[in-house]
Amino acid sequence: MSAEGTGTGRLGVWLVGARGSVATTTILGALAVRAGLSGRTGLVAELPEVAAARLPALDDLVFGGHDIGCDPLVKRAERLVAGGVVPADLLPAVREELEAVEARLRPGYDTSAVRTGSGETQAEAVERLAADLTAFRIEHRLDRVVVVDVASTEAPVELGDSGALVDPVALDAALAAGEAPLPPSSAYVLAAYRAGCPVVSFTPSPGPRLPVLSAIAAGHGLPWAGSDGKTGETLLKSVLAPMFATRGLRVNAWSSFNILGGGDGATLADPDRAASKLDSKGTGLEAILGHPVQGPMHIDFVPDQGEQKTAIDHVSFEGFLGARMSLQFTWTGYDSALAAPLVLDLARLTLRAHELGESGPLPFGFFFKDPAGPAGTTPEHRLAAQWDALVAWCADGGAR
Amino acid sequence: MSAEGTGTGRLGVWLVGARGSVATTTILGALAVRAGLSGRTGLVAELPEVAAARLPALDDLVFGGHDIGCDPLVKRAERLVAGGVVPADLLPAVREELEAVEARLRPGYDTSAVRTGSGETQAEAVERLAADLTAFRIEHRLDRVVVVDVASTEAPVELGDSGALVDPVALDAALAAGEAPLPPSSAYVLAAYRAGCPVVSFTPSPGPRLPVLSAIAAGHGLPWAGSDGKTGETLLKSVLAPMFATRGLRVNAWSSFNILGGGDGATLADPDRAASKLDSKGTGLEAILGHPVQGPMHIDFVPDQGEQKTAIDHVSFEGFLGARMSLQFTWTGYDSALAAPLVLDLARLTLRAHELGESGPLPFGFFFKDPAGPAGTTPEHRLAAQWDALVAWCADGGAR
Amino acid sequence: MSAEGTGTGRLGVWLVGARGSVATTTILGALAVRAGLSGRTGLVAELPEVAAARLPALDDLVFGGHDIGCDPLVKRAERLVAGGVVPADLLPAVREELEAVEARLRPGYDTSAVRTGSGETQAEAVERLAADLTAFRIEHRLDRVVVVDVASTEAPVELGDSGALVDPVALDAALAAGEAPLPPSSAYVLAAYRAGCPVVSFTPSPGPRLPVLSAIAAGHGLPWAGSDGKTGETLLKSVLAPMFATRGLRVNAWSSFNILGGGDGATLADPDRAASKLDSKGTGLEAILGHPVQGPMHIDFVPDQGEQKTAIDHVSFEGFLGARMSLQFTWTGYDSALAAPLVLDLARLTLRAHELGESGPLPFGFFFKDPAGPAGTTPEHRLAAQWDALVAWCADGGAR
Amino acid sequence: MSAEGTGTGRLGVWLVGARGSVATTTILGALAVRAGLSGRTGLVAELPEVAAARLPALDDLVFGGHDIGCDPLVKRAERLVAGGVVPADLLPAVREELEAVEARLRPGYDTSAVRTGSGETQAEAVERLAADLTAFRIEHRLDRVVVVDVASTEAPVELGDSGALVDPVALDAALAAGEAPLPPSSAYVLAAYRAGCPVVSFTPSPGPRLPVLSAIAAGHGLPWAGSDGKTGETLLKSVLAPMFATRGLRVNAWSSFNILGGGDGATLADPDRAASKLDSKGTGLEAILGHPVQGPMHIDFVPDQGEQKTAIDHVSFEGFLGARMSLQFTWTGYDSALAAPLVLDLARLTLRAHELGESGPLPFGFFFKDPAGPAGTTPEHRLAAQWDALVAWCADGGAR
Repeated sequence: MSAEGTGTGRLGVWLVGARGSVATTTILGALAVRAGLSGRTGLVAELPEVAAARLPALDDLVFGGHDIGCDPLVKRAERLVAGGVVPADLLPAVREELEAVEARLRPGYDTSAVRTGSGETQAEAVERLAADLTAFRIEHRLDRVVVVDVASTEAPVELGDSGALVDPVALDAALAAGEAPLPPSSAYVLAAYRAGCPVVSFTPSPGPRLPVLSAIAAGHGLPWAGSDGKTGETLLKSVLAPMFATRGLRVNAWSSFNILGGGDGATLADPDRAASKLDSKGTGLEAILGHPVQGPMHIDFVPDQGEQKTAIDHVSFEGFLGARMSLQFTWTGYDSALAAPLVLDLARLTLRAHELGESGPLPFGFFFKDPAGPAGTTPEHRLAAQWDALVAWCADGGAR
Repeated sequence: MSAEGTGTGRLGVWLVGARGSVATTTILGALAVRAGLSGRTGLVAELPEVAAARLPALDDLVFGGHDIGCDPLVKRAERLVAGGVVPADLLPAVREELEAVEARLRPGYDTSAVRTGSGETQAEAVERLAADLTAFRIEHRLDRVVVVDVASTEAPVELGDSGALVDPVALDAALAAGEAPLPPSSAYVLAAYRAGCPVVSFTPSPGPRLPVLSAIAAGHGLPWAGSDGKTGETLLKSVLAPMFATRGLRVNAWSSFNILGGGDGATLADPDRAASKLDSKGTGLEAILGHPVQGPMHIDFVPDQGEQKTAIDHVSFEGFLGARMSLQFTWTGYDSALAAPLVLDLARLTLRAHELGESGPLPFGFFFKDPAGPAGTTPEHRLAAQWDALVAWCADGGAR
Repeated sequence: MSAEGTGTGRLGVWLVGARGSVATTTILGALAVRAGLSGRTGLVAELPEVAAARLPALDDLVFGGHDIGCDPLVKRAERLVAGGVVPADLLPAVREELEAVEARLRPGYDTSAVRTGSGETQAEAVERLAADLTAFRIEHRLDRVVVVDVASTEAPVELGDSGALVDPVALDAALAAGEAPLPPSSAYVLAAYRAGCPVVSFTPSPGPRLPVLSAIAAGHGLPWAGSDGKTGETLLKSVLAPMFATRGLRVNAWSSFNILGGGDGATLADPDRAASKLDSKGTGLEAILGHPVQGPMHIDFVPDQGEQKTAIDHVSFEGFLGARMSLQFTWTGYDSALAAPLVLDLARLTLRAHELGESGPLPFGFFFKDPAGPAGTTPEHRLAAQWDALVAWCADGGAR
Repeated sequence: MSAEGTGTGRLGVWLVGARGSVATTTILGALAVRAGLSGRTGLVAELPEVAAARLPALDDLVFGGHDIGCDPLVKRAERLVAGGVVPADLLPAVREELEAVEARLRPGYDTSAVRTGSGETQAEAVERLAADLTAFRIEHRLDRVVVVDVASTEAPVELGDSGALVDPVALDAALAAGEAPLPPSSAYVLAAYRAGCPVVSFTPSPGPRLPVLSAIAAGHGLPWAGSDGKTGETLLKSVLAPMFATRGLRVNAWSSFNILGGGDGATLADPDRAASKLDSKGTGLEAILGHPVQGPMHIDFVPDQGEQKTAIDHVSFEGFLGARMSLQFTWTGYDSALAAPLVLDLARLTLRAHELGESGPLPFGFFFKDPAGPAGTTPEHRLAAQWDALVAWCADGGAR
């Protein structure tokens, strides 16, 4: 057993959206840290309270993934260097390994091809994606593989009347009939479950949150974690809102302005897709405060921001005797640099959960804007309470 | 037993610095809330988790206090109205009651008079102050009285070689010899203990923190709480620093700029007194983060600020792969409106602790910049953990 | 001749939207300053370079106006007091005079009544409004009357094919035919011109900017000024953008976030009306910089803001060797307190221009977001250059 | 005559403090722009209104300089690359030319050596420095050479009683007596004047501002410009303060907080040297507003800032009817990237002024925090007025 983790073998991390900024930073970062070129700042899994779970070592991870694009990883990495996310000197040192990962990437599920009639059915796609996962596991002799969705945000879906998004039998029937009932993010999850892989949903896309997938995960006894990585504005809300609440201060208005460039910015310039993000961002604040709060939430695409994301929030609150006071903050960060270490953390935690035989939604709300939990429970949004829950799970996991 | 508290009788709140902004807002606020003229926003004691301790009702509190000045309370209240801290329509409604409190104020311990030779010895002063407390209790048939220091910040003191600030016997000897070994804030605390009163230190002044007073409190079996109310910038640090820490993000620099007017601002323009405040403000951040952090901390007197306090903080932090990111915030509040409800909370909590027979430093770090705890323990500065400790105490107190 | 102005007689200021926040602050403020209860801070006309034009004294102004609502002025004033715009002690002192102004207010042009068929035709309305102005002038023996539009922002209009918004003859024909070709803001202007009154357009509504009204003003030899008072964010842009430009710094993105409550906020929550405001706000920046600039501009209604307007702008710029830098600012002001003195300034300046026999658009761009100028000229948006133009006009006017 | 300037020959730019961040960025930047590797953003001299003076082309400039340190320029440049001021790909392309400049650098005037007795007298030093300038001019067949001080800020000096800092004859006597009456910055200026060179003082050091040097410049008929480059916070003040002033708004408090790293930061951590900077920064604001303004001004050394300078200003102002409002801004820039293009601008402008035969302080206040002007005149601090003056000078210069 290695000092760092259980180290019982090699483990796979399969990234959906493997050529995106977050995925590229994740892979490149893991390689750089392993090579001793970069420190472990930002990796929650390296904190003693979390490492206590006896997590797999970074060294044990093998990366692969799906993507519908074909920009080489090295090119994406160069863009991250230009954008200031990644130091210029890292790339040459890990280029060879990056190319090895490149060779393991497989074509994703391209619904635009489906729409034009040239593509496969959804049933075929799911089968193909699952086969890719199985091949990856066998080829690299991996004990287990976790599938992490870091692809572009999709629009929300309605459950509809067909039952296909609720009931596994209805879903099978729809797939068999050549229909495409699932949004792509959920098709990847179905493929993962069929291949026996646990899942992490790092985006606000439907993914594993559909009732039908929840049921399938339970049926397979697979654990999953989600959704929507909490990296900036919402992270701050999850510590500031409890501060106001426990001090008995009344938050009257919380206006949130986000400007971002990069691929994420362009995606969110599409109002349909932004809806998922805004839903996900909006839930926590009012849940913590226990009442509605005025104020807009905007996400604007400003290409000049490059890889940087700036969140500007203005909060009006009321104190004793009705005194009117305010808090304003500006958070300036690199989205990928904030997300990538959490992807590695979640991959390691979820692999460990799988090893421990856990099933269903994992108590990893600490990482998420819209934390999944057991049906019927109210999600916890307060960061400190989420941390306590994570630490408790890790202590327990380490003891087993 | 009343719904709100144990309500077993009338209780006294004795304010040292009773004519200051915080004390005036405290008294006026309590009267306004009682009269139904103002809501309970900002009162932590009204949250269900805290009220669970079966705290005394606001209605049960009788106010008195010491002050070395003689500005009428009503005048001070008018200034708070002009400064926007207190709504204009409250004052007429509670003026009569305010004048009743006025009649209960007694002259404080004026060391400048001592210095000029015209005054009493420190021993005489302590005796007089204690007698005021006893008279207050008897006259108003109070079950118990808590003494709360909200006077101007004093400079820090050195323990020195004489032992008077460490050992009760040496202190008695020094007092008997006509010396004045104690800083005024501690003389008030000694008087309180002699009169059997628990103590709250809401300022960074030495007060109950001197070893000799800690020993005397223990000797009398009295509880006390302190010190330095956490109302703004430090409050924010106590939620933001844990966020960075649990996310594994490295805080490289945290620059803190405070501008304030009012009496507090003028006091803190004196570098000696500011030293106490800066010491108190500085401790928590590095304790939470576990390493030194660059960056200045300034407190500047800007008279134009009036009753408003503005804190501007600039934080530089480092993430995965060395990505450099920042957080900046501006907090604009009314110091008195933030402090006053906490004074009421602490008075009620400490009165309840006294009733429960507790002794020594109380686990009320949630309210303080520089939380006192049992000797040899490391103080907890993280707000959420402080909240959990407070809630636990309250649950336990309510069960007894 | 009075020391302050030419003082040749009594002068009328007729406010369209006379019961709104800006108008109420304007009237109440003028009365308070006259009564010596308040200083002249914020009044540009009191600066020596502007007073040099020999402007009419504040004392010489008589107020009246139109409004479609009927909230008493005193009630509106009380709301401004509650909102912190106006000191509480001013109102009792000027209440009587405020009621005198109240008596001079007349019903405005309510197009909703027209739409329901219960109202007058537009031709009748214009006639009635003009008659109100004439009656006001005669009753109060006024030498002249300026009409100032401070009503709610209207949606932009298309000129269309009918010619009625371009050609006076076509307009007359349409009016005679019982049509209502003009937006209300322009109907008031037409009434003003028919009554021989100069006009100030303080809003982004079409008002005097339609070609047909420009032609009518010229025909009557009347001066007018507009449009859209520059009170906050745009004011800052008009000094910051020239700074970047003359330093050769390249502004890549300028994101503008505005939150406001009050009546103005509610109006601008209507996207059609907001369009006028956003058009007007957007023009200056790119005109000064000479190139397109990325970044959103949002105006959001946050009722909790009350009378306060907060503008938060984030500017990314590029310097030598491509260095990427930023400026962020937060402006927190009371919209009415910023607008009202400019309304008084513009009224006095325009009355003086009328007295001097000037005609057409006046060179008062210093006050406006969307400055009108002679046809075919490029508007100047840089505040310092606008100031120089204003000062030159005043020097010239004073010399005549 | 070249398209860009008069191009009558080769011209020298001699940098005092040639190995500092600003000088290195200046040299490297000029080489990069010439080589077509970087654009002309940030170069005021490239704006048509300024280029109108027929300034020398960047191509015509030859760089040399003095420094008391001996860090190679290439090393300094590498540090600027690491600090994000200079793009990584520029350095290899200009490395050879940078080494050519390196070969032209000469040892500066090291007063610490003087103090230890090992060094030359001040008279000898001035002679040596002047000889270096002459040798530079001859060796490179330069028509003229401008000396630009970009060395570390010195403490302010008192004129004293000796007369040496006022009267050229007294200065000569003191120098002849082996004394060292001049601060180093002024010794460099004396050497420049003796070598017939015009001078630019880009720092707040005494330099050419001492009366004795003013007299010597006049005696030699040499032009000079100064002092203290206006690159950030003061630049903003010089547009914002006129905005408040011309709008009749009363600025009550302006609190200025600066954090900076790099060499400049370390220098300014020395309170004596900071005094010069604070004096220089403080003058403009009150001069523009015409009254004293409350509020601190801090400059703090935060090493983590690296080459970045962050200025955070909080402004409280009062409007009509006493309404209290505020503006806060945060400026984040690279000091060297802001200063370097201005150094090039001033060098070109001052060389042109010398060519035109101008003498005494030049009207280039646009570039300076503490603009020098003819004796007895009040300096203009408003940026727009300074721009107008610069443009007028350039138009005039171009016409000659």
